[in-house]
Amino acid sequence: HINPLDNTLDGNDIGEGRFDHGDAFLPRHIGPSEVDQKTMLAQLDPPNKSLDGFVREVLPAGILNTKSLSIHGQSNAHQSWSETKMLEVFESLSKGNRVVQSFIGCGYVGTKVPEVIKRNVLLNPGWYTSYTPYQPEISQGRLESLLNFQTMVSELTSLSISNASVLDEPTAAAEAMTLSLNAVPASRQKNPNKTFLVSNLCHPQTIAVLQSRADGFGIKIVTADLLASECQAVKHTGQDLIGVLAQYPDTEGGIQHFQGLADTVHDLGATFCVATDLLALTLLKPPGEFGADIAFGNAQRFGVPLGYGGPHAAFFACSDKYKRKIPGRLVGVSKDRLGNRALRLALQTREQHIRREKATSNICTAQALLANMSAFYAIYHGPKGLFAMAERIRKRTDILRRALLNLGFVVNGKTEIDDAVLFDTLTVDVGHGEAARVAEWALSTQVMNFRLLDDHRLGITLDETVSIQVLARIIEVFQQFSKIQEVFTETRLFNMQESVTPISESLRRGSSFLTQPVFNTHHSETELMRYIHHLQSKDLSLVHSMIPLGSCTMKLNSATEMAPLTWPRFSDIHPFAPIQQAQGYMLLIDELEKDLADITGFHAVSLQPNSGAQGEFAGLRVIRKYHEQNPGKKRDICLIPVSAHGTNPASAAMAGMRVVTIKCEQKTGNLDMDDLKAKCEKYSEELGAIMVTYPSTFGVFEPQIKEACKMVHDYGGQVYMDGANLNAQIGLCSPGDIGADVCHLNLHKTFCIPHGGGGPGVGPIGVQKHLEPFLPGHPLAKVGGEKGISPVSGAPWGSASILPISYAYIKMMGGHGLTHATKITLLNANYILARLKPHYPILYTNAAGRCAHEFILDVRKFKETAGIEAIDVAKRLQDYGFHAPTMSWPVANTLMIEPTESENLGEMNRFCDALIEIRKEIAAIEKGEQPREGNVMKMAPHSLRDLLEGNQWDRSYSRERAAYPLPWLKEKKFWPSVTRLDDSESPRDSF
Amino acid sequence: HINPLDNTLDGNDIGEGRFDHGDAFLPRHIGPSEVDQKTMLAQLDPPNKSLDGFVREVLPAGILNTKSLSIHGQSNAHQSWSETKMLEVFESLSKGNRVVQSFIGCGYVGTKVPEVIKRNVLLNPGWYTSYTPYQPEISQGRLESLLNFQTMVSELTSLSISNASVLDEPTAAAEAMTLSLNAVPASRQKNPNKTFLVSNLCHPQTIAVLQSRADGFGIKIVTADLLASECQAVKHTGQDLIGVLAQYPDTEGGIQHFQGLADTVHDLGATFCVATDLLALTLLKPPGEFGADIAFGNAQRFGVPLGYGGPHAAFFACSDKYKRKIPGRLVGVSKDRLGNRALRLALQTREQHIRREKATSNICTAQALLANMSAFYAIYHGPKGLFAMAERIRKRTDILRRALLNLGFVVNGKTEIDDAVLFDTLTVDVGHGEAARVAEWALSTQVMNFRLLDDHRLGITLDETVSIQVLARIIEVFQQFSKIQEVFTETRLFNMQESVTPISESLRRGSSFLTQPVFNTHHSETELMRYIHHLQSKDLSLVHSMIPLGSCTMKLNSATEMAPLTWPRFSDIHPFAPIQQAQGYMLLIDELEKDLADITGFHAVSLQPNSGAQGEFAGLRVIRKYHEQNPGKKRDICLIPVSAHGTNPASAAMAGMRVVTIKCEQKTGNLDMDDLKAKCEKYSEELGAIMVTYPSTFGVFEPQIKEACKMVHDYGGQVYMDGANLNAQIGLCSPGDIGADVCHLNLHKTFCIPHGGGGPGVGPIGVQKHLEPFLPGHPLAKVGGEKGISPVSGAPWGSASILPISYAYIKMMGGHGLTHATKITLLNANYILARLKPHYPILYTNAAGRCAHEFILDVRKFKETAGIEAIDVAKRLQDYGFHAPTMSWPVANTLMIEPTESENLGEMNRFCDALIEIRKEIAAIEKGEQPREGNVMKMAPHSLRDLLEGNQWDRSYSRERAAYPLPWLKEKKFWPSVTRLDDSESPRDSF
Ligand SMILES: Cc1ncc(COP(=O)(O)O)c(C=O)c1O
Ligand SMILES: Cc1ncc(COP(=O)(O)O)c(C=O)c1O
Ligand SMILES: O=C([O-])O
Repeated sequence: HINPLDNTLDGNDIGEGRFDHGDAFLPRHIGPSEVDQKTMLAQLDPPNKSLDGFVREVLPAGILNTKSLSIHGQSNAHQSWSETKMLEVFESLSKGNRVVQSFIGCGYVGTKVPEVIKRNVLLNPGWYTSYTPYQPEISQGRLESLLNFQTMVSELTSLSISNASVLDEPTAAAEAMTLSLNAVPASRQKNPNKTFLVSNLCHPQTIAVLQSRADGFGIKIVTADLLASECQAVKHTGQDLIGVLAQYPDTEGGIQHFQGLADTVHDLGATFCVATDLLALTLLKPPGEFGADIAFGNAQRFGVPLGYGGPHAAFFACSDKYKRKIPGRLVGVSKDRLGNRALRLALQTREQHIRREKATSNICTAQALLANMSAFYAIYHGPKGLFAMAERIRKRTDILRRALLNLGFVVNGKTEIDDAVLFDTLTVDVGHGEAARVAEWALSTQVMNFRLLDDHRLGITLDETVSIQVLARIIEVFQQFSKIQEVFTETRLFNMQESVTPISESLRRGSSFLTQPVFNTHHSETELMRYIHHLQSKDLSLVHSMIPLGSCTMKLNSATEMAPLTWPRFSDIHPFAPIQQAQGYMLLIDELEKDLADITGFHAVSLQPNSGAQGEFAGLRVIRKYHEQNPGKKRDICLIPVSAHGTNPASAAMAGMRVVTIKCEQKTGNLDMDDLKAKCEKYSEELGAIMVTYPSTFGVFEPQIKEACKMVHDYGGQVYMDGANLNAQIGLCSPGDIGADVCHLNLHKTFCIPHGGGGPGVGPIGVQKHLEPFLPGHPLAKVGGEKGISPVSGAPWGSASILPISYAYIKMMGGHGLTHATKITLLNANYILARLKPHYPILYTNAAGRCAHEFILDVRKFKETAGIEAIDVAKRLQDYGFHAPTMSWPVANTLMIEPTESENLGEMNRFCDALIEIRKEIAAIEKGEQPREGNVMKMAPHSLRDLLEGNQWDRSYSRERAAYPLPWLKEKKFWPSVTRLDDSESPRDSF
Repeated sequence: HINPLDNTLDGNDIGEGRFDHGDAFLPRHIGPSEVDQKTMLAQLDPPNKSLDGFVREVLPAGILNTKSLSIHGQSNAHQSWSETKMLEVFESLSKGNRVVQSFIGCGYVGTKVPEVIKRNVLLNPGWYTSYTPYQPEISQGRLESLLNFQTMVSELTSLSISNASVLDEPTAAAEAMTLSLNAVPASRQKNPNKTFLVSNLCHPQTIAVLQSRADGFGIKIVTADLLASECQAVKHTGQDLIGVLAQYPDTEGGIQHFQGLADTVHDLGATFCVATDLLALTLLKPPGEFGADIAFGNAQRFGVPLGYGGPHAAFFACSDKYKRKIPGRLVGVSKDRLGNRALRLALQTREQHIRREKATSNICTAQALLANMSAFYAIYHGPKGLFAMAERIRKRTDILRRALLNLGFVVNGKTEIDDAVLFDTLTVDVGHGEAARVAEWALSTQVMNFRLLDDHRLGITLDETVSIQVLARIIEVFQQFSKIQEVFTETRLFNMQESVTPISESLRRGSSFLTQPVFNTHHSETELMRYIHHLQSKDLSLVHSMIPLGSCTMKLNSATEMAPLTWPRFSDIHPFAPIQQAQGYMLLIDELEKDLADITGFHAVSLQPNSGAQGEFAGLRVIRKYHEQNPGKKRDICLIPVSAHGTNPASAAMAGMRVVTIKCEQKTGNLDMDDLKAKCEKYSEELGAIMVTYPSTFGVFEPQIKEACKMVHDYGGQVYMDGANLNAQIGLCSPGDIGADVCHLNLHKTFCIPHGGGGPGVGPIGVQKHLEPFLPGHPLAKVGGEKGISPVSGAPWGSASILPISYAYIKMMGGHGLTHATKITLLNANYILARLKPHYPILYTNAAGRCAHEFILDVRKFKETAGIEAIDVAKRLQDYGFHAPTMSWPVANTLMIEPTESENLGEMNRFCDALIEIRKEIAAIEKGEQPREGNVMKMAPHSLRDLLEGNQWDRSYSRERAAYPLPWLKEKKFWPSVTRLDDSESPRDSF
């Protein structure tokens, strides 16, 4: 057992940390220089002389920590690792991981990431630092790319609607189940025996995750051989059936005819769901053509590295009739003010933001960056290239099958060569008790991982990286264990390809796919590179300007943090590879869990959830499981303040809790303590939990938070803290100290994982000691608590390959650095607040006049004075080169501003100047100098075509005013590529 | 002796090459699809049915090869390596290189490349695929960055003029020498004893390269101890002196007062040149303040990897009086039509393009990309950061000095601790015959390289990567060889820093530096990233559209080819490291030399020259050396056609040859064979060489080329071929077969090294067997022929770290693929020609109506008909999103178009549509529908400010016409960031 960190972590104290090493990370991460920090303190309202003095005005005295934060493996709070040291540690950690070619399958296979995509998308901050495309005018590039993803999925599955990705294949299965539930009549939804029937040939992690999701909805998961005895299991379920899930090809490689099954399911009024594989669908009859209502799967094999489990994009498609029920984000085609084609997120209204506890999905952050990579992969290969790749894999699988049969093995239950159709996977029976020995032999002689199905069967899944040579090496392994002497030279194997029989008519795909020009015109590297850059040029990201999104913490995603992402020893590890092959990951994960526990004041952390919303769900499930251990009433009431993010009630509902709303003070956003008291009293026996965000969604440190926690505890409830705003806490206070029992963190907010234009994310949960036993487990890995809940993600450690980012951030900042960053985050927000206060009402500040890390700009009064609403301010900000702050949340028609510590004074001043100038533009309307309609704000944003097409110009403002309202815009301006989208016009979801 | 390639190169034939492996590179590199190729053949004028039939119309029958090209290590012409295989081979090759921390110095030291610069500049095609900024309106980003570089150099050296980089430090020394020659009165220039005096403490490779350059100019190089006996050597040289070169700090680390020397040199009317180090100049009195007229050096330590010798940017600065004589490119501040600040390359006219054989420098391609990296490095660290880094290094060097003295060693000639000033380098005497033993011990116990100065002295140069720990390890080595028992713990070493004495007043820098805002405002990663992207957004590169520059071959620079560039095993090798540590490089270099020899039909290749122009110089020097071996007259006449590139006569002159011009036919550009015959006859005894470009600079395969070669050979001359147009030859014909004796290739044109916005480049030369003995050598490595000329570059293998790019290109294309690329390059050019012929006169096509890989569009008549010149077409093309073709070369007021094989049909059609639309715009002027002045072409290009500022619009065309003359521009358009610059300063836009 090696420890690659031995001499880096435990070296003596005379490390670079103590010497001035010249590449300390802190000053690179923090925006304002020390001089600027002084300037800003002096310009606060009221000013303050010292940063610490100022901090004491922001945090309530009872909350502020007294002891300093120190990071695991660093001898004191003032230690931190330089960027160079960090890269050395990564190098050292990487050596603990071993790259072994894995044929384990289960939805994760080898892929060749085209270098042009790796370089221009995955390694390009222009792509990975952008936000979810909620502002379509400055997001047309990634919207187009996500639309390509949707089109690709829709075409390959032959289902008319696809969303823009979900978190992973198992959660996609869960979404399919919930959608199925949603689709049956209300009576059946209420049926206590309602059942979701799952093929026993689904991937094991899919079944496990389904289990965790089914509980909350009171759905029974029954696994069965679906086709046995003419779909007996289905018929038997009868009116209890809400839906059926089959896998195609199945986890053991079998490919079945499902039309009969589909008909049977439909006859019972239930939904037929199919887990599938995009590449296989280039050869096989697609689910939409044999009666599937929903199809989903992992798009990882389309050019996204294994990454020890993620992140990857899962896809989700359904037939038209489920259009309004499909979970997640969906890009649709619409028009801008000029009538030009423009894309936007569609059907926002149907989901958790609005439906809250009535929502059946809580997904927000998805896998946009990875979906984009997969879409570009399909574009690069085109339909012909994908088909050829699939055929190559199918042929090699068939050759392997025949070779193994020749060697006397039982393959997929058969002993004779027939013309069974396989795609990429087969199982081989090596005799009782022999499977492990063969697998070990494969590992030691050929550096290969097979899947251990049971004590006598191995699974082998091939992929595009498998050459004829590799095939020969696989066969070599089995020759060792065969009594039959047969030689399979590479040439023989090569020639065997010709005798592979075609797929039978009934299973073969007959329909064409990916015929759209975009999939047929970018096959040279030059063309793809240009297309990627063209799309990128339409998108505003952190490479352009600050993205001051309240509650989203768009801070620096540094290149050093990101560096190991594409190192093979991190990217090429299968999530179910033997743990000995991932010791580097294990060390990193262990350290990161400890660091996060220290930072949050918790006892233990689970890194499994791959988004904040998943963290919420996981945390609430942990709470529920905890309560179940105790006698007494079912504690299933979840108190949630009205100001909570929509995911909170949605997650609570999904976890099977009943949501009870707590009032907040109108002005402060603080919990109404009387109401809290009353509700605690009312539900004293059933109180399960409260969900609170801290600092509150209004961006203030509520002074009564500890009191509230105590009260809930006194009534037997647990405290769930939404950690979206953790960036305001680190080093100054902690959820654990405040009294939370569970908290999710968003590593993609607070800990520097980039937003990727809408994902990936990581939403770990930290818990107090009493909850540790319930942390989520996994069927294929030792992870989580002894009595752990079922997994919430397909991979044991979720999106493992991006964890190094947060790890590096923590280690390079050190305890002192992290704390300092928090102080600057508070300073930055309060600086902007001070500059804007003379011009705009601020919704709420504390008694000292301070906000936390964000604050709400109140623009409601302008509706009356000038007909101007928050959206007009947001859109006009685009003309000034900025992304809008968070809009109309938590308070309608306001803007919530969060600059983060990474923005510097110059950038913040430009942002303030822009908002102040906008205030003047509003004033001009108020004064009647500009009309209430057709003014520069109502017409915002202005695209170039808007200003340059046609010769007529009969607006009340000049082109120059539209384009260059402030002088520095002439030097540096980001142009929206379309004009405002008509928000009322419901976009078409067809493409 | 290992051979990491053993099982990749010599595997049996059943490699991926024979199987369909799905990631063949050929279709990624080639633009047009197979279907499009057919379409294009059919649209040629006249059409042709087959690609090979078409090729036979392009190449003269006597030239076209019959046998197919096969690449070394590939069993037949149809083999090629997939991208995956290529990455595997790189991995395997890299293992032949060993990363050893090197303290060898000599101008090459360790550096920490900031990840943000690596990712956003070095790995970003937006930066590396752009061309030299000859079109300023679409190049303001890199022009600003190069101006930053110049400012940085000028500030640090305290000399008012700096250029935008030269090739390396030794060639910078050579340029300094030539400038010195240029600066003395004509009488002294003609003095046969004219002498350039060089300090014996200059780097050895600098002295060696000076030697190679001095020969051609008839300059004597004398090395001496410059300060000895009150500058006796200088005084002694007297009126023979043209200049003096000192090094500061010198190669052994000494830092001397040079004011007295400078005065003595000036008294003799000569120039004082100083080789120096930018980082040292943050602490030391800069050369401009002690009388230096010229200062130069290597900027590598400013964030550019060692890369086994290059590429790096050398800097070159001089005092104002040499402004018009400074070699290389220079960015200057100018104004655009609107009067806004705009940057441009200045003082073009003074150089080889115009002066031809009167030029004293031939530099074209320089080191733009690396200069940009170094400029960003200075911006990121700022003056304070650089100062702190320099002080840290100085202190550690001083601690090392004191520790070594304590241990009883002689350091820099001294045995006692005094307050001698050192910066980063010291020498230590370890006793006679002991040096090698100590070095070996350092390598085997501490994995460190010291410099072996002689049998008893070692040199040690520290850099920013040297931590206190590393320092302790260096000392540990010497403790082994010392009788004195003294312990230097890390803590002791750390504390010793405090007692380092300040630099004495007389040597200390007193003046401030880098006070400009740009060096003081981008110190956070976010800010630097944004600045980099902001500059990038102003520059047109291959990520936007084709760059159809005749004679420049702007083809795909693929991501796979570029991949190993930043792998430590390639990037972190010191050029003078023991050769055993670079076996991966050796294998790659050996293979690449063989491949290039095969491709060009030559016997041997030298990779040392780091630009095309350097190749010319090297090749001509080889020819001269060859002739010198033979009895008879000095064969120093060089025949050069009038249509030759300006570097040809410049290089000939630099090589000490007399240039005689050969006429060309006006229309065809072909050699005037009668004139050639006459000149051969006239100079029959003195004929040294002819320099020809093939295909000719007119873009045609001259049929008489073999005849011409034979004629020159018959008269005793050698044939030098300029390989700028080699892209038209590969696999179809070869310089060697045609009759050339030497040819330089431009790996940055034909073999996929990106142009980097004006460098790096690699200009290897291939030679016939009789010339091999004369290939350039190197004082510190076994390289070149037995009787090799002195080196032409500082590093034995020039810019070694970018050689993998060309290597990969060749291996991934294979013989067949390379040949196919040539065919497509011809097809693409002829397709564009066919589309444009109905609209524009074409200067010349062959009897079959074909051009080679490029052709000349003749716009001369429009001067009369519409007042329109080539520059107007070039500038208007920017409005259509294209870079202009090569302008006014080889024929004034024409445009030379070269698309390369990487452009696809769609892109070429857009380009043709643009030129056809421009023709209509000219026609409108011809017809009088538009005025001859102030029309859309004369006003082109249009920046956004031009269209949007002010409300008045009184032009004869609309804003829409200016911006969107073709409909697709509304979807995708690149905007010039300024309007047209006043071009009167530079009549010819060339390369
Ligand atoms: C307060 C709060 N909770 C939860 C979430 C959901 O997090 P995620 O998008 O990672 O699922 C968000 C997202 O912005 C949020 O702001
Ligand atoms: C014909 C010809 N010769 C020589 C050169 C000089 O090459 P380099 O810029 O690499 O020095 C060029 C550059 O374009 C050229 O076109
Ligand atoms: O992403 C959010 O739903 O805030």
